[in-house]
Amino acid sequence: MANSRQRLSDLGEFGFLATLRGLRIPRRGVEVGIGDDCAVVRCGAGRWLLTTDALVEGIHFRRRWDTPSGLGRRAFAVNASDIAAMGGSPRFALLSLAVPASARVSELRGLIRGFAAAAGAAACALVGGNLSASPRWMISVMLLGAAESRPLLRSGARPGDHLYVSGRLGAAAFGREILLGRRRGTRRQTARFRRPSPRLELGRMLARTRTASAAIDVSDGLLSDLGHICRASGVGAVVEARRLPLPATLAALGAEDRLRLALSGGEDYELLFTVPPHRVRALEAASGRLAVPVTAIGRVVRGRGISVVGAPGERLAAETAGHDHFRAGAGRRRPATIPRARKLR
Amino acid sequence: MANSRQRLSDLGEFGFLATLRGLRIPRRGVEVGIGDDCAVVRCGAGRWLLTTDALVEGIHFRRRWDTPSGLGRRAFAVNASDIAAMGGSPRFALLSLAVPASARVSELRGLIRGFAAAAGAAACALVGGNLSASPRWMISVMLLGAAESRPLLRSGARPGDHLYVSGRLGAAAFGREILLGRRRGTRRQTARFRRPSPRLELGRMLARTRTASAAIDVSDGLLSDLGHICRASGVGAVVEARRLPLPATLAALGAEDRLRLALSGGEDYELLFTVPPHRVRALEAASGRLAVPVTAIGRVVRGRGISVVGAPGERLAAETAGHDHFRAGAGRRRPATIPRARKLR
Repeated sequence: MANSRQRLSDLGEFGFLATLRGLRIPRRGVEVGIGDDCAVVRCGAGRWLLTTDALVEGIHFRRRWDTPSGLGRRAFAVNASDIAAMGGSPRFALLSLAVPASARVSELRGLIRGFAAAAGAAACALVGGNLSASPRWMISVMLLGAAESRPLLRSGARPGDHLYVSGRLGAAAFGREILLGRRRGTRRQTARFRRPSPRLELGRMLARTRTASAAIDVSDGLLSDLGHICRASGVGAVVEARRLPLPATLAALGAEDRLRLALSGGEDYELLFTVPPHRVRALEAASGRLAVPVTAIGRVVRGRGISVVGAPGERLAAETAGHDHFRAGAGRRRPATIPRARKLR
Repeated sequence: MANSRQRLSDLGEFGFLATLRGLRIPRRGVEVGIGDDCAVVRCGAGRWLLTTDALVEGIHFRRRWDTPSGLGRRAFAVNASDIAAMGGSPRFALLSLAVPASARVSELRGLIRGFAAAAGAAACALVGGNLSASPRWMISVMLLGAAESRPLLRSGARPGDHLYVSGRLGAAAFGREILLGRRRGTRRQTARFRRPSPRLELGRMLARTRTASAAIDVSDGLLSDLGHICRASGVGAVVEARRLPLPATLAALGAEDRLRLALSGGEDYELLFTVPPHRVRALEAASGRLAVPVTAIGRVVRGRGISVVGAPGERLAAETAGHDHFRAGAGRRRPATIPRARKLR
């Protein structure tokens, strides 16, 4: 039990969410409730996915980092990524905005148009929203998605499964550090942060062909999100550092820096998924037909926890915590990319 | 077109929303998009309702006004009221919270438990959410509701229809002024503000029996919300001031003060609806079986605009604007209950 003086910063987001177990919630129509990328509900005969995520000015973005339209596109993408992780298709969107009365009309319209355009490109309709006054900009999005196939959950990973990730890891966090002025870099190197691509096609393929046993999107950082799969599935994992797909944009960095960005940077919005051994050939065949590469980065193992195995003879033991806005240090503006991975021996 | 220097405070919320017409939105599955209490979408064979509303600390509430659980209950109620206005049933809820890292765990849990309990009492399941860091508390709610009957829209009112409202008007705004320290009153007199009751049963009855031609919930104020019905339906309305159902709690106020609270106070979350003449007897019969009273307060007429007819010989011309957080004056802490109704002769 939480004691009455405890603050959110003592528990962190994930610790706090754990205290909510035991809430009495009606079960009618709920297949998957709190705790996965999306909720899965029954509407009539079909299965539908519900998800929400918010972007807060000064925490998740600064307005000068992108055009209003780009910010709107990003707000759609980070939410659609949760639908992608379940193998579904975003269909209907609500956009709840809180902005100061001094906000420029042109800026607000740009944001909404960017959001609606990104949604429209994914065949998702912006059907409503809300506008409130607030000292800071805040963008809350809710998506209702269709699950044409059985949704991919976090809980299906089994020992022996292969661990895969789409795209490349670390470029988004690298871009964020450039935007924050903590690293030097070009505008182009910030693009992966500013304009993530939800992996909707890949997610649908994985669900339709039943190739993946579990999936999640990489939003908080590879280790943190892999930790969610491990806890939900009751398994451990081994990640091979040398197999991590690093983007060319990180080539100039030191090896340790690169590894930290890839393991704990977050904001990549790639899919991390597990594949049973007998489905690996099917995956490799199917992924060749998609625009996004997938890379085997490790294995699911019995037990608990995640080991990161580096160059021969080197071993990293990883804490599974990724970026958490509430944990001690968030107030000290600790860069999101500071690693939680600790080197052993 | 909005010009590039215009600020939100120049246009107000409703003026701004008008600039969004022309957004290109996919139509597949969308029966009613932006502009009613809820969106109406098709999920498989059924019709479903989507709505979102937010409460921002310092704008919509202060934390000392109620217990955390009470605030959570209110957050559910104001959203469920939009589902009630369409005649549906809330089924699934998402709760997106933004709070400071210094927030007490007990307070946050109380809010979520209050929300889940109020939702559960309406057979609605809290299925997911999101927790972000923010300097101020902000509560964003999204509901997915089932429309068992054809949804009640704002656009169905016809000249000759009778205008009805449920419950009583003005007590919520009166309670809010007490909480703001602008009026004297007891804690009990603030209850209608703190704990609104969404009129779900009434809404469902109106939709199921096709008794109402149009409906909306009274959130911004009677005149403002009636204005939405009039604009959406292309009609005008006459409200008879002496018929307005005033609560006993306003008895000690002057006549003008009472009228202003009832016409423009807002936050009542009662249903305002129109009934064709041939359905009036059916309504009166059916409403006797519900716990909430309904009162005929005027008529729908040809033309535009709303007239408020007072005591014999007295006439009020009403602007239809109600509470708008963004219009000039919002920054000057103008009480939400200052009337926009102007007396004529």
